[in-house]
Amino acid sequence: MRLDDKINFEASLYDVVTMGELLIDMISIDYVPTLKEAINFQKTFGGSPGNIAVNLAKMNYKTALISSIGADDFGRFLMGFLQEQSVDTKGIQISDTNTSVVFVTKSKENPLFLPVRFADLALSLKKEQLFLIDNTKIFHFTAWALSHEPIRKVTMALLEYARSKKKLITFDPNYRNVLWEKGHDGPDFIRSKVLPLVDIIKPSESDAEHLLGKGSLDDYAMKFKDTGNLLVMMTLGAEGLMAMDDEEIIYIPSHAKEVVDTTGAGDAFWSGFMAGILNGKTIREALLQGSYSAAYKLETMGAVCELPDALTLELWARQS
Amino acid sequence: MRLDDKINFEASLYDVVTMGELLIDMISIDYVPTLKEAINFQKTFGGSPGNIAVNLAKMNYKTALISSIGADDFGRFLMGFLQEQSVDTKGIQISDTNTSVVFVTKSKENPLFLPVRFADLALSLKKEQLFLIDNTKIFHFTAWALSHEPIRKVTMALLEYARSKKKLITFDPNYRNVLWEKGHDGPDFIRSKVLPLVDIIKPSESDAEHLLGKGSLDDYAMKFKDTGNLLVMMTLGAEGLMAMDDEEIIYIPSHAKEVVDTTGAGDAFWSGFMAGILNGKTIREALLQGSYSAAYKLETMGAVCELPDALTLELWARQS
Repeated sequence: MRLDDKINFEASLYDVVTMGELLIDMISIDYVPTLKEAINFQKTFGGSPGNIAVNLAKMNYKTALISSIGADDFGRFLMGFLQEQSVDTKGIQISDTNTSVVFVTKSKENPLFLPVRFADLALSLKKEQLFLIDNTKIFHFTAWALSHEPIRKVTMALLEYARSKKKLITFDPNYRNVLWEKGHDGPDFIRSKVLPLVDIIKPSESDAEHLLGKGSLDDYAMKFKDTGNLLVMMTLGAEGLMAMDDEEIIYIPSHAKEVVDTTGAGDAFWSGFMAGILNGKTIREALLQGSYSAAYKLETMGAVCELPDALTLELWARQS
Repeated sequence: MRLDDKINFEASLYDVVTMGELLIDMISIDYVPTLKEAINFQKTFGGSPGNIAVNLAKMNYKTALISSIGADDFGRFLMGFLQEQSVDTKGIQISDTNTSVVFVTKSKENPLFLPVRFADLALSLKKEQLFLIDNTKIFHFTAWALSHEPIRKVTMALLEYARSKKKLITFDPNYRNVLWEKGHDGPDFIRSKVLPLVDIIKPSESDAEHLLGKGSLDDYAMKFKDTGNLLVMMTLGAEGLMAMDDEEIIYIPSHAKEVVDTTGAGDAFWSGFMAGILNGKTIREALLQGSYSAAYKLETMGAVCELPDALTLELWARQS
C-alpha cells in the first residue's frame, strides 16, 4: 500500500467493525500523582474500539462492535450508550462475569491506570461475528484483544477470517505490559503472528519500542516493514505523526491548538483517518483528516467526540 | 451466655483481631436508582472488619486485621490508611491480583452494590495469623470471608484455632447471595459449620431470613438458639435492635436522631459493643453502648468514625 493509493471498497452493510475492550473508565476528577491519592472518580464509557465505533456512527458511518460485557449495571450502561449512539450491538456478548473497569489518573501526559478486567476477556466465537466481518469494509482490532485467553484465540480466528475475506485490516498495537498474561511473550506474538495479517497499524513511539526494542524512528520504520506488507502510521504525541510506505517517510506536524483532554485523541485520529479512506481519499489525505480530528478532539473533554465533516474540519484546522 | 454476664478477658497484646474483606468502596456521589445512572464516585477505605478495627483503634484499643490486598495503588492506599490509624498490619498479605473494589450506590435505605473481588479472596494461611489469634481477646470475622475459596478454608482453620484457644468469637453474618460462589449452599454451610463455633452474632432481619428462611422475630430467635450456644443481637434498622439469650428477648429502640449516612452504622454498633464488653460492662450495658455508637455514626459521613468514650456517648444520647 502506498501513501497516494485510494482504497476501493465494495458496497456493504457496515463501514467499520471494531473488536476489543469495552469497559468502564473510572477517571480521577483531580490531577493526582498516582491512584493512591485519587479520591473522586468519574465513570465513563471506555475502550478504544468502542470510541472509534461511536465517533464514526456520529458521522453517520455504519459501525458495529465485537466485545463482551457483564450482566450488571455497568454492562447495561455500556450497552445503552452504544444503542443511543446507533452502534450495532449484535456483536456484544453478555458474559457471566463482571463488566471490566479501568481506573485511570487524570493527566496531561501519561495517565497511570489499573485495569480490572473480567468480561471483556470472556469472549467466545459466535456466528454473528462472522456475519459482521463478512459485511464490513474495515475490520479494526487492538492489542487488548490479544493480551489474554480466551479472547486471544477468538481474535486470531476472526483476524484470519477477515484476511480470507480480503477486508482492510487495521490494528492498534496499544501495548501495555501490565495487560499481558505472565509468561506470554506479547511482542514476539504480535510481530510473528499478528502483523503479517494486518494492513495498517498505528503504534505510538512507546508501542514501537515495546514491540521492536529501542531504536530510532527509521529503525522502527525498517523493522515494521520487515514484518509484512504494512502501512505504518506512528504517532509522536505533541510532535505529530509520521507515516511510511515502501518508498517514503512523511511527517505531519500536530494540528493541536489547545490541549484540554488527551483521552481518546488516538481514537479520534483513527476515526478521521477511516472516514477519509471510506470517502475515497488517498492515504496521504486521510492522514491529514486523522490529524485534524485528533486536534479537534484535544479541545474537548471525554473519550468520544462529535467530529465535523472533512471540509469543516479542514477550515477549522487552517484557522490560525 | 446471658445478657447480664460480664466477660472476663485475660490480659493480652491485642483487644480485637478482625478478619475478612478489605477493599476500596467506590460510592456514588449522587443518590441514584442503580449504578447504571451513577456518574461520579468517591473512593474510600472499605470493608466491615477494617472499619471495626479502625473505630476501636481510634478509641485506643489495640486491634489487628487479617486480610489481603493487591500490590497496586489501591492496596497501598488501604495499607497506608490502616497504618495511620494504628491498626496492626502484620496480618495483611499482599497478593499478586488486584485489590478488591466494591461499587455502591449512595442511598438512605438499601444501597445497591457491585463487588469486583480479587485480592481479598486470595488469603493463605500464615503463622502471623495464629500469633494474632493467640494474642487477642476477641476474634471477629464476617460472611464475606466464607463466600469463596481460598479464603473460606483459611477462615475455617482460624475459627477452629480461635475456638481451641477459648477466644471470644463474634461473627457478622452479613449475607449477600451475590457474593457466594455458584452452587455453594451458603446458608446451610453457615448454619451447620460456622454458627456452632461462634459466641455472638449480629444478623440483620434480612440476614436472618436468608439463613433461616422467612419467619417471625421469635422464630429467628428459636432457630438461632438451636444452632448452638449463641448470643443473638438482631438489628432492625430504624426500629433498633433485639437481643436474646436463653431466657429473655429484649428490645432496644434506635437512638438515632438524624440520619446523614448509614454506611458503617453496623460496624459502629460492633465497635461500641466490643468497647463495652472489653471495659467490663455486662452484655446488656454493652448493647446500649453499641446502640448509642450506631446513632452517633449515623450523624456523620463515612464508614469509620471517632466514637466518644462511654460516658460522653451516653450523655450525648440522652440529650433530647
